[in-house]
Amino acid sequence: MRADGRENDELRGIDLKLNYTDNPDGSVLIEMGKTKVICTAMVEDKVPIWMRNSNSGWLTAEYSMLPGSTSTRKQRDSTRGKQDGRTVEIQRLIGRSLRSCIDLNLIGQRTIWIDVDVIQADGGTRCASITGGFVALYLAMKKLYDQGVLEAFPIKNFLGAVSVGKVDDQILLDLNYIEDSRAQVDMNVIMNDQGEFTEVQGSGEGGTFSQEEFSTMLALAQEGIRDIFVDQRLALEQYLEDYKNEKNSTSN
Amino acid sequence: MRADGRENDELRGIDLKLNYTDNPDGSVLIEMGKTKVICTAMVEDKVPIWMRNSNSGWLTAEYSMLPGSTSTRKQRDSTRGKQDGRTVEIQRLIGRSLRSCIDLNLIGQRTIWIDVDVIQADGGTRCASITGGFVALYLAMKKLYDQGVLEAFPIKNFLGAVSVGKVDDQILLDLNYIEDSRAQVDMNVIMNDQGEFTEVQGSGEGGTFSQEEFSTMLALAQEGIRDIFVDQRLALEQYLEDYKNEKNSTSN
Amino acid sequence: MRADGRENDELRGIDLKLNYTDNPDGSVLIEMGKTKVICTAMVEDKVPIWMRNSNSGWLTAEYSMLPGSTSTRKQRDSTRGKQDGRTVEIQRLIGRSLRSCIDLNLIGQRTIWIDVDVIQADGGTRCASITGGFVALYLAMKKLYDQGVLEAFPIKNFLGAVSVGKVDDQILLDLNYIEDSRAQVDMNVIMNDQGEFTEVQGSGEGGTFSQEEFSTMLALAQEGIRDIFVDQRLALEQYLEDYKNEKNSTSN
Amino acid sequence: MRADGRENDELRGIDLKLNYTDNPDGSVLIEMGKTKVICTAMVEDKVPIWMRNSNSGWLTAEYSMLPGSTSTRKQRDSTRGKQDGRTVEIQRLIGRSLRSCIDLNLIGQRTIWIDVDVIQADGGTRCASITGGFVALYLAMKKLYDQGVLEAFPIKNFLGAVSVGKVDDQILLDLNYIEDSRAQVDMNVIMNDQGEFTEVQGSGEGGTFSQEEFSTMLALAQEGIRDIFVDQRLALEQYLEDYKNEKNSTSN
Amino acid sequence: MRADGRENDELRGIDLKLNYTDNPDGSVLIEMGKTKVICTAMVEDKVPIWMRNSNSGWLTAEYSMLPGSTSTRKQRDSTRGKQDGRTVEIQRLIGRSLRSCIDLNLIGQRTIWIDVDVIQADGGTRCASITGGFVALYLAMKKLYDQGVLEAFPIKNFLGAVSVGKVDDQILLDLNYIEDSRAQVDMNVIMNDQGEFTEVQGSGEGGTFSQEEFSTMLALAQEGIRDIFVDQRLALEQYLEDYKNEKNSTSN
Amino acid sequence: MRADGRENDELRGIDLKLNYTDNPDGSVLIEMGKTKVICTAMVEDKVPIWMRNSNSGWLTAEYSMLPGSTSTRKQRDSTRGKQDGRTVEIQRLIGRSLRSCIDLNLIGQRTIWIDVDVIQADGGTRCASITGGFVALYLAMKKLYDQGVLEAFPIKNFLGAVSVGKVDDQILLDLNYIEDSRAQVDMNVIMNDQGEFTEVQGSGEGGTFSQEEFSTMLALAQEGIRDIFVDQRLALEQYLEDYKNEKNSTSN
Repeated sequence: MRADGRENDELRGIDLKLNYTDNPDGSVLIEMGKTKVICTAMVEDKVPIWMRNSNSGWLTAEYSMLPGSTSTRKQRDSTRGKQDGRTVEIQRLIGRSLRSCIDLNLIGQRTIWIDVDVIQADGGTRCASITGGFVALYLAMKKLYDQGVLEAFPIKNFLGAVSVGKVDDQILLDLNYIEDSRAQVDMNVIMNDQGEFTEVQGSGEGGTFSQEEFSTMLALAQEGIRDIFVDQRLALEQYLEDYKNEKNSTSN
Repeated sequence: MRADGRENDELRGIDLKLNYTDNPDGSVLIEMGKTKVICTAMVEDKVPIWMRNSNSGWLTAEYSMLPGSTSTRKQRDSTRGKQDGRTVEIQRLIGRSLRSCIDLNLIGQRTIWIDVDVIQADGGTRCASITGGFVALYLAMKKLYDQGVLEAFPIKNFLGAVSVGKVDDQILLDLNYIEDSRAQVDMNVIMNDQGEFTEVQGSGEGGTFSQEEFSTMLALAQEGIRDIFVDQRLALEQYLEDYKNEKNSTSN
Repeated sequence: MRADGRENDELRGIDLKLNYTDNPDGSVLIEMGKTKVICTAMVEDKVPIWMRNSNSGWLTAEYSMLPGSTSTRKQRDSTRGKQDGRTVEIQRLIGRSLRSCIDLNLIGQRTIWIDVDVIQADGGTRCASITGGFVALYLAMKKLYDQGVLEAFPIKNFLGAVSVGKVDDQILLDLNYIEDSRAQVDMNVIMNDQGEFTEVQGSGEGGTFSQEEFSTMLALAQEGIRDIFVDQRLALEQYLEDYKNEKNSTSN
Repeated sequence: MRADGRENDELRGIDLKLNYTDNPDGSVLIEMGKTKVICTAMVEDKVPIWMRNSNSGWLTAEYSMLPGSTSTRKQRDSTRGKQDGRTVEIQRLIGRSLRSCIDLNLIGQRTIWIDVDVIQADGGTRCASITGGFVALYLAMKKLYDQGVLEAFPIKNFLGAVSVGKVDDQILLDLNYIEDSRAQVDMNVIMNDQGEFTEVQGSGEGGTFSQEEFSTMLALAQEGIRDIFVDQRLALEQYLEDYKNEKNSTSN
Repeated sequence: MRADGRENDELRGIDLKLNYTDNPDGSVLIEMGKTKVICTAMVEDKVPIWMRNSNSGWLTAEYSMLPGSTSTRKQRDSTRGKQDGRTVEIQRLIGRSLRSCIDLNLIGQRTIWIDVDVIQADGGTRCASITGGFVALYLAMKKLYDQGVLEAFPIKNFLGAVSVGKVDDQILLDLNYIEDSRAQVDMNVIMNDQGEFTEVQGSGEGGTFSQEEFSTMLALAQEGIRDIFVDQRLALEQYLEDYKNEKNSTSN
Repeated sequence: MRADGRENDELRGIDLKLNYTDNPDGSVLIEMGKTKVICTAMVEDKVPIWMRNSNSGWLTAEYSMLPGSTSTRKQRDSTRGKQDGRTVEIQRLIGRSLRSCIDLNLIGQRTIWIDVDVIQADGGTRCASITGGFVALYLAMKKLYDQGVLEAFPIKNFLGAVSVGKVDDQILLDLNYIEDSRAQVDMNVIMNDQGEFTEVQGSGEGGTFSQEEFSTMLALAQEGIRDIFVDQRLALEQYLEDYKNEKNSTSN
């Protein structure tokens, strides 16, 4: 059994507080165990320069950790004058992942900003950011759709993310910080509710992994993400009717 | 009566959630009406270079607004590559103010980092940051004192802050965003529980003010900050016994 | 008596050299004791982006200290790659103050740049910058008005600034560097010639101040600034006729 | 058949010019089809600050594209003042991968710098950088080992990398730029000569992929990388004797 | 005789590989002894802002050294966040020199980017950059002229560059790194094939020079550059016919 | 005759105000016609890292133009976040030149900072900076020598600088801004009072120059700099006695 009492294939408890703050088009406070992330989605009425003459919109993500989110204070990127490499890598992953679950041709010449700010870090912040960021995105799109700003509902799929890893030669689901820092292999899996992957990143800096282990980890992640979809759906319950209807009408 | 139903001399409701997150030495989520700020205090075992050969410690503050804290998304300073002028001005004020209520000779060669991150902005964020930042600082000092890291309790006074302003020729206490953006005169007052000021900044970009108005505003602010001390004390109740004892022993 | 022989309520000698350099629309070398600042005003035929669709103009200020202005060489901001916090704070104060004495609706879609560069620093540089900056601004507006570029003279009031402080429990006017570095309380007061304040910033990092001391300092500053207006008027003598006429016509 | 006449499971021709330049400890010009990358390895006699008190060394990588490497000129990062996000992501991948094939405890308090500069880009630059970077690293370690600077030969495994992707619903090996820009799914696979993976990054911005497709792509990449090992070995022929001996002695 | 066996007035061997890479409009790998530089010329269909309303085009150059080009690794400017002073100085020289040999009025509202990246540095990199950069520029202009993008061939003159210096009181042509680092005087001479100079920069940080020495060095440089023209012409042989014709037609 | 009435070989009037400000070890306000530059020399008791283990000192220069020094306001480098290329080029020239006239082995492990800030620009600012910077350097060295900080007087030679140029096919001495902006060839010459050159930079962006013209310009510059030496000597009169003595003693 793991230090926090979980089984190897057990997720930490997930809590989603919808519309946690008022100003964004959508906002969520996600807690995944002790990891806490504020996710917001805001829509801007213009697109990046290189997209001006398309009919499409864009979605981009920015990730940050508050200085007090870690046990040793994390220096602000704004004080250092630039974002650190890990931040850049993570926010590119978040943006890419969320773009895969939305039809950007349906949002017009607009940019969706997904901002994820880690309040407390205990492992799995990038996955929590994607899981919570999806819900914030959903809320924002629902708001614009209800306001008639969007003619069609652009969300194509639900999207969730979870980490799996090999620690002490055991395959574990949803690593916390202690486990993550000792992991031989660390994998982040992002999947939609059609059971298709949009990103899989496995890294073995402290070790390597065989194709067989890879498959085991992938299967475990799939199970975990299916549970995450349940949490997302419960939280979004009141909005799901519309989503279902929308899906039906677009699939006809 | 004001748009949100308050009297001219009435504070917004204050809520203080102590030790809101686990990693900092002290942390507080302060809500002042719809303004919400996460304040953390973290102690580092070294001082800035220019202080190396003193016996004293240092306290410094950093302020930031999350992109989703405002109605129009606020671009991150880390993306712009530098902090904007308003941010710099505010965090210098916070640092200066909090240094006035602590005896830095009692903390040894350490730096206290006060980080304030605005989750939701509705006016008065710098004052909420000081009021909440004081409580986070108190908690951090209490923790180090209880651990025996500090031999004497270094907090000298309670510290609170509030804004006052002239709007439509009326003197108002604790301006929200709508009031602030229309203010002829805007004043931020920081005071300790001896009734002494540590900072007073009055600015009349959209107007000017006479010495008489100045006095009226100052008196109103004093009343407001006295109420803030009550809220801080209630929240810190369990810690106050020690504070009182400490004060007694140091004054002997 | 003070180290330089002044009474507690005595200003240092002020010297204003008008149109000190040829290229700016207005330029002044102000000396306030040993503090020397070059102040220039230059008008640019465009406004910041966020002001494009207004009918108004803008005024902004930049402050810098030459490396040789201080006893220990001051590193250039351009070498550090960013402005330091104190610089940012000061130039925002200067800009805000000078905007209060001009009707920006009368200058059209133009930006007035006030540049203040400290040649020699002996305390009170921000106040000297405002006092001298006002004169440079006046000269620039006069030039544009005389050329017919401006239809109305946009200066609304004279503006002056002075510091007051508490040093060794004495209230002193116009602190020099030695006094400033030992001050318990330091206050910068900016006032117009209607006797109205536009900015008051009192700070007690090394101490605190009561409402009574505040009033005393404010009254002392008022006296000092009234004397500064005399110096400004003498220096501007030949231009004042127009100013008076202009004031008369606009007040009718 | 593909546009350049290859079969779906066919690598582009690989050419490795060893010790292409004289100054680095190891240098390689790798050509993979039309993609050309200069890879150098240089050893510095110190480690990053956070590693000072370990007994280990460090390896880090930096990636850059020459402005003329792409069909539209690529702006220099040094002109923009910061590295773009893609650059950061890629160089972190290269560093992480190469660290997996070397025992950093055997190199002492030294840093190995792997620099990869793309001369001509036609897809697969990050994989070519790893494949070529490994050879440069090998040469540098061999040089230091022969000089007696290192007591043991620190390379643990050969390392190679290749991309696979889904284009027009076909699974292709080693995508060139045209194929890459149209890919539904793009995967980069890094593997050692024990058949173990150290990194797998699959991304489906323009599509998604099932677990089955994932397995197919992974198998195809394995085949490709095995061929790459042959090319690396041929190029390193004269150095391999030592490597074999070293491996034998360390495995005893 | 010099360390590498050359006479004092002898150039190192020059090798020019034309169209070394495919993407630029013109590209050259120049080797001058052990100094190797990749020079590319790329044409962009716009000009800098300050040139918008002219009828002319612009040419600008950027210079960089790969980290592995020197015996001690050279830190990347992009990592430092800014270009170092030497880089700035050199690329300004290259741009200025190349602008002197082209009629920018004949290229329309276009910018020619000359990028020179030093692969291996053994002294004289700025001169090799100009000599090679000229050839890349020539190839790019020829391509655009042949495509009918340009109506007239804009190259006015051939351009070459060489260093001369005083080492151990001897005047040497084309200094390598060892000689350069010990030089009392170092001079870079840029000349066109009319025998006219466009730039002469003589610097004596480790010594000084008389007018007589100056003349001797200049004469030696002229001899060297004349030989360089021969190498450029041989390399460009197939293109020269057009150049000659163009020159004839424009001189009529 | 030239626009300002001078002969082709005539310098503008030079004025040198010594110890213009109090804080630097040496300071000079130099006026050369309408060009005005504040030059300061400050000595710091440490050297750059790369010089730590030598016995020598260092001299470095920084150049800047005040925003109001030019007819169109010059944006501050600190606002742009980096120094522009011209600034970098000029300050490197100033530093290199001044290092040639001092024996840095005689100043110990110290850094001399030469700061030149252009108050008003009318051409020739880099030459005025060197001419005035030399005098500031002289004053600083004299002060340290008199204080006994330096055992030997380290100045080896006087140093002066002047520009020459070809304008409308005429060779002119000491170009003002109007002449400079129309010059076909522009040359900056730096010479010591032994008649030896330390830097010669001739540039013909708008034209070219023959060896003969080069010699003519050089001879004209020499004449001009000899006159500059007279001005420097007159200004330094009271200090020269020591210099002469020092020179005598060191040459014995």
